[in-house]
Amino acid sequence: MSMVDVTAKPDAFREAMARGIIKLRRETVKLIESGMVEKGNPAEIAKVAGVLAAKATSQLIPLCHQLPLTSVKVDVNIIDESTVEVISIVRTRAQTGVEMEALTATSIALLTIWDMVKAYEKDELGQYPYTSIEGIRILKKEKAMSN
Amino acid sequence: MSMVDVTAKPDAFREAMARGIIKLRRETVKLIESGMVEKGNPAEIAKVAGVLAAKATSQLIPLCHQLPLTSVKVDVNIIDESTVEVISIVRTRAQTGVEMEALTATSIALLTIWDMVKAYEKDELGQYPYTSIEGIRILKKEKAMSN
Amino acid sequence: MSMVDVTAKPDAFREAMARGIIKLRRETVKLIESGMVEKGNPAEIAKVAGVLAAKATSQLIPLCHQLPLTSVKVDVNIIDESTVEVISIVRTRAQTGVEMEALTATSIALLTIWDMVKAYEKDELGQYPYTSIEGIRILKKEKAMSN
Amino acid sequence: MSMVDVTAKPDAFREAMARGIIKLRRETVKLIESGMVEKGNPAEIAKVAGVLAAKATSQLIPLCHQLPLTSVKVDVNIIDESTVEVISIVRTRAQTGVEMEALTATSIALLTIWDMVKAYEKDELGQYPYTSIEGIRILKKEKAMSN
Amino acid sequence: MSMVDVTAKPDAFREAMARGIIKLRRETVKLIESGMVEKGNPAEIAKVAGVLAAKATSQLIPLCHQLPLTSVKVDVNIIDESTVEVISIVRTRAQTGVEMEALTATSIALLTIWDMVKAYEKDELGQYPYTSIEGIRILKKEKAMSN
Amino acid sequence: MSMVDVTAKPDAFREAMARGIIKLRRETVKLIESGMVEKGNPAEIAKVAGVLAAKATSQLIPLCHQLPLTSVKVDVNIIDESTVEVISIVRTRAQTGVEMEALTATSIALLTIWDMVKAYEKDELGQYPYTSIEGIRILKKEKAMSN
Repeated sequence: MSMVDVTAKPDAFREAMARGIIKLRRETVKLIESGMVEKGNPAEIAKVAGVLAAKATSQLIPLCHQLPLTSVKVDVNIIDESTVEVISIVRTRAQTGVEMEALTATSIALLTIWDMVKAYEKDELGQYPYTSIEGIRILKKEKAMSN
Repeated sequence: MSMVDVTAKPDAFREAMARGIIKLRRETVKLIESGMVEKGNPAEIAKVAGVLAAKATSQLIPLCHQLPLTSVKVDVNIIDESTVEVISIVRTRAQTGVEMEALTATSIALLTIWDMVKAYEKDELGQYPYTSIEGIRILKKEKAMSN
Repeated sequence: MSMVDVTAKPDAFREAMARGIIKLRRETVKLIESGMVEKGNPAEIAKVAGVLAAKATSQLIPLCHQLPLTSVKVDVNIIDESTVEVISIVRTRAQTGVEMEALTATSIALLTIWDMVKAYEKDELGQYPYTSIEGIRILKKEKAMSN
Repeated sequence: MSMVDVTAKPDAFREAMARGIIKLRRETVKLIESGMVEKGNPAEIAKVAGVLAAKATSQLIPLCHQLPLTSVKVDVNIIDESTVEVISIVRTRAQTGVEMEALTATSIALLTIWDMVKAYEKDELGQYPYTSIEGIRILKKEKAMSN
Repeated sequence: MSMVDVTAKPDAFREAMARGIIKLRRETVKLIESGMVEKGNPAEIAKVAGVLAAKATSQLIPLCHQLPLTSVKVDVNIIDESTVEVISIVRTRAQTGVEMEALTATSIALLTIWDMVKAYEKDELGQYPYTSIEGIRILKKEKAMSN
Repeated sequence: MSMVDVTAKPDAFREAMARGIIKLRRETVKLIESGMVEKGNPAEIAKVAGVLAAKATSQLIPLCHQLPLTSVKVDVNIIDESTVEVISIVRTRAQTGVEMEALTATSIALLTIWDMVKAYEKDELGQYPYTSIEGIRILKKEKAMSN
């Protein structure tokens, strides 16, 4: 087993954009919209968690290279009455791409939203029949050689 | 902002089971089945990444408590010609539940599978039109008071 | 060299409260108050960083024990036109106290505020003649035996 | 929320020097001077903690970039009968400055000194009326374009 | 105390190869060979642990620089009826060498093998009279200036 | 793959003692003895690294449980003109033993000594013909039921 050997590859400017959603109960989305979630602001905390996770990717995904990210941006949007979206954009100037970093930021931000609202998502038996994370994808990946 | 205060809660035996899937190209699933993925065995490496991620949950999800997990089990199964499933079961004896740990293990294991096969999932433009992570859910959560 | 041996000590409910301040330029404090800091909300991000740092204390301070924190709360307040205060309250049920966790949360939250506003604090030579962190102290430490 | 985008910035040689002090009881400073602190040598352990913290800055301060530090130096000096000083100097060749790394090294080194001597700083009620960390500042920040 | 200052050193292609062995009971080596170790596949899990450890070296060894590894390869081989060997090869393009990364990968992979088979190595008193890690060495270290 | 399930096991007082040695050139051991190692004091820094590593064991060894260590002690001794010994003693009150923690502390402390003196161990070709880590073993493991 080995990491892909990128020793001989030149640096390039690289960007990746990832997106995913979390399905929540309508009552929960209303609580988020009205700023009434008791543990704090889910969107703000999810964004911080996403940025930190992007930087921790090489410690979480075993064969990922350590890349010095030059920009990480995580956005959280309510897109309908039962759906919250996370979009992450990551940039670097390195020998390999940053799609795993964008995906990791998105995944951890979505999990953080779940954690922030989990008191409202549980049913009377303590289960989560409504909550799910869906559609984690790479929207775009770009590469431009530096000169 | 604060973590939920669980100081006064008694310990209980707790378990959570989470599941999620990754959609891949049929050619990629065949490579996994035949043990031909060049970077190594995606299922094995995903399981290790999932177990480690379960134990790192409180560092990744800002308001999660640090829980001493007494068992973590991560399974990876090919369920049809374009779908791989991850199921994680986490146990503890603690003051709060382990659903975030099971979800984090599942998410990081799924991301690790993506990373292991990303060379086969990209199209000729370097994009990922086929790959997505779907249906990350809690299948079951249990709690039993210890005596 | 060794960590203090607490093997034989009984568990107790423990709490510690720490406080510190950061001195900033008046213009910077106005930007914080009006929500105009370009990188994001310094108070929100500092609170997240503080909570995460409390949980990472035993990895940062070499001889600190690993304690399962049952509550962490970090508050950020503007207390006059050039001063922002951080107060952290940490609780556990463990064999030793949590003053280092409260102090670490406070220190990292203060550093995060600095980082969020550093573009506004630098003078024309790129130096920081105005900015300083002061008065990091333990306000209160409590212990109650559990039964 | 986003990290400042430094993708297009050129690398430069960068250095930052940070300083802070911890106020201790005179008896405690004498114990440090005479090498009688039971848990070990506070200055040595604080220096190690400071160097490691400098390298962990991007995991602690959410919007800090990951910078490959080329030099970290942490000094600990007793400057009068109740004051210990920490000075940290950090260097890199990167797209952005290292002031947060120097401040983080200094803060964690000061907290480590507190931890090492906390048995001697507590009063009979277990409180810390004498101990405080003060004056954490950037003494100097420099930048030179590499060619 | 300080990290060696490599600020002025040029980047070079660097490689290091480290090796070590673990002595085990013959029955244990047979279990590994036949894939009968109950906790999982020791070689696979050791390789993952080794690769992750290589990337964590600067957090574990206090004065190591943070190096962006461009390749990490860990191999595990049974070399006789009571000996398992680990060989790690690490590459980078950086200002200083990667021998500590190769040694750390090797050491953590060997410890992981021990952990995976520890149920079979203990005697009836719960002691480990047979198990030991031996001969951790650098086999080769290379450096080539990049142009 | 799964961590051993210890959910139903009772807590016990547990201790493990591990030992290992590093073989060095005689000139290097003399430099250590005379306090002339330029990067700092190898024994002091190795002890700090060992204590921190003990606490990080569950993040390094994939299937290790997270145990709240109640005591960690690392000693470094020069035992003859070319040999330095590390002995680590770890204690906890938990559901499973701490041999992996003692072994990890010992291994990382030995690697830290290597790193501290590597300038003196290299030959004229930059190789390490003299240096090796040997005999990492568990000297003793104990368990006593708590009441």
